[in-house]
Amino acid sequence: MNDESSRELRHRERMQRKKAVVDQAIARADVDRGVLLVLTGNGKGKSSSAFGMLARALGHGMQVGVVQFIKGSYSTGEEAFFRRFPEVSYHVMGEGFTWETQDRERDVQAAQAAWAQARALLRDERVSLVVLDELNIALKYGYIALEEVLEALQQRPAMQHAVVTGRGAPAALIEIADTVTEMQVVKHAFKAGVRAQKGVEL
Amino acid sequence: MNDESSRELRHRERMQRKKAVVDQAIARADVDRGVLLVLTGNGKGKSSSAFGMLARALGHGMQVGVVQFIKGSYSTGEEAFFRRFPEVSYHVMGEGFTWETQDRERDVQAAQAAWAQARALLRDERVSLVVLDELNIALKYGYIALEEVLEALQQRPAMQHAVVTGRGAPAALIEIADTVTEMQVVKHAFKAGVRAQKGVEL
Repeated sequence: MNDESSRELRHRERMQRKKAVVDQAIARADVDRGVLLVLTGNGKGKSSSAFGMLARALGHGMQVGVVQFIKGSYSTGEEAFFRRFPEVSYHVMGEGFTWETQDRERDVQAAQAAWAQARALLRDERVSLVVLDELNIALKYGYIALEEVLEALQQRPAMQHAVVTGRGAPAALIEIADTVTEMQVVKHAFKAGVRAQKGVEL
Repeated sequence: MNDESSRELRHRERMQRKKAVVDQAIARADVDRGVLLVLTGNGKGKSSSAFGMLARALGHGMQVGVVQFIKGSYSTGEEAFFRRFPEVSYHVMGEGFTWETQDRERDVQAAQAAWAQARALLRDERVSLVVLDELNIALKYGYIALEEVLEALQQRPAMQHAVVTGRGAPAALIEIADTVTEMQVVKHAFKAGVRAQKGVEL
């Protein structure tokens, strides 16, 4: 047997073993239900990942909802884009980042108003995916009560998916979530002097 | 001074300090250029994050390109969705996961054909964002030469953004990247018996 064909053979054997493992795992996972995802950590990709899932859901003809907490004083590419679609219910909290306003009372009111929108989406069976972007930040500052959020998430429709993003997800939220990813910074262009770029961060 | 107003004051002071730090960092970051992002690690969110950036870029009216390596034997929500837009050049490698085909020679040919599409996008100044989804897997199996990929990424147009996803990003790719996120699994619904869900994974 020459080198090339023995390489092919080893490859086939390795892939057969891998396929067996993957097939077994897939056979074990046979439940369909709405999942709660939490995307946290300091790395880039939390919000953009939530918006990628929104695109996937739209590809399947689903109705979706978005509430952006904290962010919102500048218009972003995702907002401009997703507002085009009638299947998307899009809500942005009226104020900017909390260190821009420096006014706790105003921030609390804005967060509560955004949370009221979120609650309505989390009760609506027609909505297949709800994105709660940067909700973790509003929780961290105590603008919204954690217990209320946990309850609303747990009582949402059985087939509805929910995605919560933001640094510093509370332990109790991680506890009730189905899928949790911690996004870690390996490096970031911003540190090298590159400002936020359209199509990447904006 | 009562408790409430002293709380407000502390909040304002903390936020003023934070704003000073953030403003300073923003002032230091004044470069505009195309960035190379690598999204790696075992956690959920790598590909969806790349697709979220695609949505952002479309929100800014940019032309974008996608090449999906390895995946592609089943149609996904993102593909159904993004193929709707004339601003998106979408290419999917013809074969499924490598452990499905079990045929190295066929996989190499499919990967090379996909890479040819990627190279063309990476030379096209009109394309503002190029997503190379699961390219790291094709590199890991040696289907495409790493040196060729590094060279094409480094020689791309100065204002073009590129996003490479997939587990196990090679060290040399991380080295030349501007922004790198490692997505770590904290937990995953799949392990609890929930299969891949439309709008989330599919």
